[in-house]
Amino acid sequence: MNIRPSLDQIGVGAGKKARLYRILHQNGLRNGTAIFLPYDHGLEHGPRDFFGNPESGDPRHVIRLALEGGFNGIALQVGLARKFYWDYAGEVPLVLKLNGKTDIASAIDPLSPVNTTVEEAVRLGADAVGYTLYVGSPAQERDFAQYLRVRADAERFGIPLIVWSYPRGAAIDDKGGKDSFYAVDYAARTASELGADLVKVNFPQPDKQSGVPEQYRGEFSSAEAIARVVKSANRTLLLVSGGEHAGDEAMLEKARQSMEAGATGLIFGRNVFQRGHDESLRLVAQLKEILAKYPS
Amino acid sequence: MNIRPSLDQIGVGAGKKARLYRILHQNGLRNGTAIFLPYDHGLEHGPRDFFGNPESGDPRHVIRLALEGGFNGIALQVGLARKFYWDYAGEVPLVLKLNGKTDIASAIDPLSPVNTTVEEAVRLGADAVGYTLYVGSPAQERDFAQYLRVRADAERFGIPLIVWSYPRGAAIDDKGGKDSFYAVDYAARTASELGADLVKVNFPQPDKQSGVPEQYRGEFSSAEAIARVVKSANRTLLLVSGGEHAGDEAMLEKARQSMEAGATGLIFGRNVFQRGHDESLRLVAQLKEILAKYPS
Amino acid sequence: MNIRPSLDQIGVGAGKKARLYRILHQNGLRNGTAIFLPYDHGLEHGPRDFFGNPESGDPRHVIRLALEGGFNGIALQVGLARKFYWDYAGEVPLVLKLNGKTDIASAIDPLSPVNTTVEEAVRLGADAVGYTLYVGSPAQERDFAQYLRVRADAERFGIPLIVWSYPRGAAIDDKGGKDSFYAVDYAARTASELGADLVKVNFPQPDKQSGVPEQYRGEFSSAEAIARVVKSANRTLLLVSGGEHAGDEAMLEKARQSMEAGATGLIFGRNVFQRGHDESLRLVAQLKEILAKYPS
Amino acid sequence: MNIRPSLDQIGVGAGKKARLYRILHQNGLRNGTAIFLPYDHGLEHGPRDFFGNPESGDPRHVIRLALEGGFNGIALQVGLARKFYWDYAGEVPLVLKLNGKTDIASAIDPLSPVNTTVEEAVRLGADAVGYTLYVGSPAQERDFAQYLRVRADAERFGIPLIVWSYPRGAAIDDKGGKDSFYAVDYAARTASELGADLVKVNFPQPDKQSGVPEQYRGEFSSAEAIARVVKSANRTLLLVSGGEHAGDEAMLEKARQSMEAGATGLIFGRNVFQRGHDESLRLVAQLKEILAKYPS
Amino acid sequence: MNIRPSLDQIGVGAGKKARLYRILHQNGLRNGTAIFLPYDHGLEHGPRDFFGNPESGDPRHVIRLALEGGFNGIALQVGLARKFYWDYAGEVPLVLKLNGKTDIASAIDPLSPVNTTVEEAVRLGADAVGYTLYVGSPAQERDFAQYLRVRADAERFGIPLIVWSYPRGAAIDDKGGKDSFYAVDYAARTASELGADLVKVNFPQPDKQSGVPEQYRGEFSSAEAIARVVKSANRTLLLVSGGEHAGDEAMLEKARQSMEAGATGLIFGRNVFQRGHDESLRLVAQLKEILAKYPS
Repeated sequence: MNIRPSLDQIGVGAGKKARLYRILHQNGLRNGTAIFLPYDHGLEHGPRDFFGNPESGDPRHVIRLALEGGFNGIALQVGLARKFYWDYAGEVPLVLKLNGKTDIASAIDPLSPVNTTVEEAVRLGADAVGYTLYVGSPAQERDFAQYLRVRADAERFGIPLIVWSYPRGAAIDDKGGKDSFYAVDYAARTASELGADLVKVNFPQPDKQSGVPEQYRGEFSSAEAIARVVKSANRTLLLVSGGEHAGDEAMLEKARQSMEAGATGLIFGRNVFQRGHDESLRLVAQLKEILAKYPS
Repeated sequence: MNIRPSLDQIGVGAGKKARLYRILHQNGLRNGTAIFLPYDHGLEHGPRDFFGNPESGDPRHVIRLALEGGFNGIALQVGLARKFYWDYAGEVPLVLKLNGKTDIASAIDPLSPVNTTVEEAVRLGADAVGYTLYVGSPAQERDFAQYLRVRADAERFGIPLIVWSYPRGAAIDDKGGKDSFYAVDYAARTASELGADLVKVNFPQPDKQSGVPEQYRGEFSSAEAIARVVKSANRTLLLVSGGEHAGDEAMLEKARQSMEAGATGLIFGRNVFQRGHDESLRLVAQLKEILAKYPS
Repeated sequence: MNIRPSLDQIGVGAGKKARLYRILHQNGLRNGTAIFLPYDHGLEHGPRDFFGNPESGDPRHVIRLALEGGFNGIALQVGLARKFYWDYAGEVPLVLKLNGKTDIASAIDPLSPVNTTVEEAVRLGADAVGYTLYVGSPAQERDFAQYLRVRADAERFGIPLIVWSYPRGAAIDDKGGKDSFYAVDYAARTASELGADLVKVNFPQPDKQSGVPEQYRGEFSSAEAIARVVKSANRTLLLVSGGEHAGDEAMLEKARQSMEAGATGLIFGRNVFQRGHDESLRLVAQLKEILAKYPS
Repeated sequence: MNIRPSLDQIGVGAGKKARLYRILHQNGLRNGTAIFLPYDHGLEHGPRDFFGNPESGDPRHVIRLALEGGFNGIALQVGLARKFYWDYAGEVPLVLKLNGKTDIASAIDPLSPVNTTVEEAVRLGADAVGYTLYVGSPAQERDFAQYLRVRADAERFGIPLIVWSYPRGAAIDDKGGKDSFYAVDYAARTASELGADLVKVNFPQPDKQSGVPEQYRGEFSSAEAIARVVKSANRTLLLVSGGEHAGDEAMLEKARQSMEAGATGLIFGRNVFQRGHDESLRLVAQLKEILAKYPS
Repeated sequence: MNIRPSLDQIGVGAGKKARLYRILHQNGLRNGTAIFLPYDHGLEHGPRDFFGNPESGDPRHVIRLALEGGFNGIALQVGLARKFYWDYAGEVPLVLKLNGKTDIASAIDPLSPVNTTVEEAVRLGADAVGYTLYVGSPAQERDFAQYLRVRADAERFGIPLIVWSYPRGAAIDDKGGKDSFYAVDYAARTASELGADLVKVNFPQPDKQSGVPEQYRGEFSSAEAIARVVKSANRTLLLVSGGEHAGDEAMLEKARQSMEAGATGLIFGRNVFQRGHDESLRLVAQLKEILAKYPS
């Protein structure tokens, strides 16, 4: 079992530490773990993600879910934050997602353009900001440029920066795809090398080996893979993404392996809100039972 | 034997001189030579570089190696510097690498985008900054533009600028490749013409002659080649890169020829950390025996 | 005996820590203590301070004294730093004094105007900057205004800020004078409250009680007084000033009591350079014997 | 014979006039003519230009040649200027070349990216700045944009701007090539229209007529051609480039025709430094004999 | 005899060195000494200074005097520089005086307000800038503030800064006056501490002892006094002011003692232009005979 880094060890100043303390020790289980509810699907995928469970299209519903479920934070785009967070300001930590894109056109050089600023996040009372970095994209130059400004502002304002570190682009597709152990491991490390405070990654799939570098062509269990990914992130706190709606037991097992590997927590969206209200809360309770075993 | 330029002769003001004095005369052998440990492979190649020796994936392990081995400096990307350098601040000089890229996608116009600033390097207590220039890349215009800003800031803050001067691009591939005497010689000169304080180059391979200009199509020993490269760098202090993990005797011979030619030192990463702890220190000791013969 | 705060405990980032580590652990006795040589008397008092020992008017002589005596740093105004530090760059840490004034006219509102910037200090390779704050002066508003800019820049560049915290003005004169326990204690606390990293104070004289607040009107030994002053400075490292040329045994006793009280070190100018070369080094050796007893 | 414009007639303010006076009347023959030594080949062509005469790779050798030969100025890139000009500051005028590129990759849209600023030229004590404009390149838009900034700054600082006005690109190749009378004439005029103070052109070859506009398809002697080019430059002082190493008599004849046509002088690099020391000085003496006949 | 510092020893970069080399080695006697002609009396005193020799009110007359006399530079306010320097641009170095004041009202807090910028000096082709600092004035705070900006710009543009270091104010009057050894010595040191490249001082009068600090109350010859002043200026090149029109032999003796003491040269205004043309040149010739004995 990896040791999850404590807030004393991750190179943050007082402001970031205070906000992370609030998120990790004064919300959720208050034990240093976290479960976040991301809710930016309306921009990333459009309302289609809400068709199965129409009330999930209502931001109030989802924010209340975050409150009832005792989430450590909810991630919103600026529009929903401006319209809905006032009502619940301070009741659940806000992660303002700074960039995002529609999935209407597919690009050969994926890039998630910034649509707000860290300053606006501070003004809105956010306790963290989120940035999607497309690792492997040919748009790396523009991506790093806007990321540099975001990171510098996050330092200036003492607000934690969560990087959605997502492998993307044709080269990723050719090298095992975006969920391969190789891709996820590289993405975690890239976020750490570039100064993220927390990193959100997909759960690695070590059997996706077609085209990956030889070091990744071996027998790795998913537990081994996620352990390596956590190590690659080193002092960057790691959050495992739920990804697409999947079977409960598979998801709980991913959560168990992640926490055992030293992850700080989970960030589950569709798996939570694409269910009815009670079923959602039941799943969240099961996830929190797992988190409860990994206090720090 | 070339004469290595002294710190009085290289056109630097008090700030750059103080920092170079610290690096070259108050660390390592304290004799004007240097051996640096670059550790940006997590971004440049991803965690695969750490698979052979898993502890090398842990920045603490590698920083401690730099301390135990008596290196003159360690080169890090901003994320690892922020997370790990505080613990060892001042114990070993920090070279903050200002740009970097993943190797996931291959580009026809290689460029290493900047992800931090010289000001942040100063704030972190770095004693030098590093910039990768891709000599020969079709992206020269953008490369020079971001390099210009970096160089101007390095002047403004009196911090030495080390240029990783790397031949890259299709034209380089057509003209003998990135390790040819032609390419390395041109790269060293380009860094000098553009105002680098130190330049990191690969060791030249004079037998790679396919497509190189006629002046380079002759019988050159590697000792002659590196001597010419050092002359091309003139008052830019020259560091020879270890490159990929190679046989010990070959590496030691490269080191000997480089120092004899007037290089200031070595910058060895994978050859050092892709070994077990004791074997690493043994190699470093051998390299330092060579450096010890070239005091200034 | 007070415990001197370590560099891990004083709320500084990597840059300030690296520079303090250099000053306190890689120069002088390398044991966490410090003795500084301030040499700004040419501006503050004019050349008359050099008449008794004419060679002390030559900055080269004094810088060499700092080197031979193994000082932890020398404090210079920008003009001397620009003209003389290059020759010795990096050999002894430079503290660039950012403000200063002549003593020709006496002011009812003493203020020490800034004549350079923190950025220039960084460019010159300084390891710390110095600022004179006139605690108690009616010019407090303008003093705090320029101090604020200095402190903000020192944070931005990660360079330690040493505050020469000097009680001054008619109100100070009426309340026991600039060396009273009251005045020195208040000055130490003011520097700490305003964010100094180190503070330079005069040694307190608890018998100067005329006009001081009642709390300071009691029987305090000088050892008690300096211990209280160090506590008032809390996590601001404290340096005790030598002041005017005085008898050796008195000075050594001040040094002993200061170190015993938890001071980090001494800052002795006239008591050092207003002697012949050998006599200076003899005194410094005696002072360092005292410092050697207080490693951290 | 054309009349060369005097410094009173070319629309420059006091700063540009003072610096041109210095170059043309206080250096070289002090008669209003000029011979410049350009030395940026290490960037433009790489060290191969120095293989025939290895000492020419040493900037000190070439600067000393400029001093011994009594040149009116030496043109350097910023790196060599920073490292070597201090030693000879003021002894020979410096022309800081502001842009440059390697010749490793060939571009369809040639552009010479800026790597320093006019302000840095002023700081280094340069008496003029140089800018390469690629007349005819598809990159004209970016070229004009960076040229505009350079010219505006040269105005602001009162420093003369020398435009290396070089025809380049596929359209030029299709219309007689870069040395055709057509191309050189257009380049000279373009520099004048765009506000250059001096322009450097190749010597026109009126027999290169394939594809040139009909006006240039006639019987022109080279003397007629260069006279027309000088007229096209009107009040922009014209310097004729030596180009590749060529036969002495041919070069001297080019020089004679140029001066007779009203050129202000010559700018000879490879023809000078690709010879042994004594032979270089002999050639320069011959060129200066020609210049001596054209005082102003 | 003091040794005058050479241009290699005074801590200046290439730009300042090039301009100083021009002033000291390519004008006047070209031997490292200098005689400057200051001509700002029209602002400082008004036209009354020109009544005795009316042609001295015509800037053309005085600039031509500087040319005929072979001065190393002429100091002008911006208006005269703009109106008259173009005609003679580059023929004699221009020192642009950046501040000045009328003497109509007497102030208790003398300050010489800035009326142009270093940038304008560069644009006008000046080789140095001049700034009057009123040492001892109660306006020290505003004086240092504008001086700081001037010095920073002079650094940025590589142009030498000559400080007219003038003791002024009631405190000076009370302590021996503006020409006392004490006042001149302090003024020279202040300029050096504050980073002047050259300093202009009055010749010290050691017999003015009323009210001066005790160190200055002794038997000093004027030769001893000026030697101490030159030492106080250390690496700041020292120019001795002619002051009010005085007897020739007294002036020549001042010049002799100053040069013997290690001064770099003289700055004589009224003593030069308040005479007829031929008499002026005769005096200048005599002064230059003295300078000729002190080459460097």
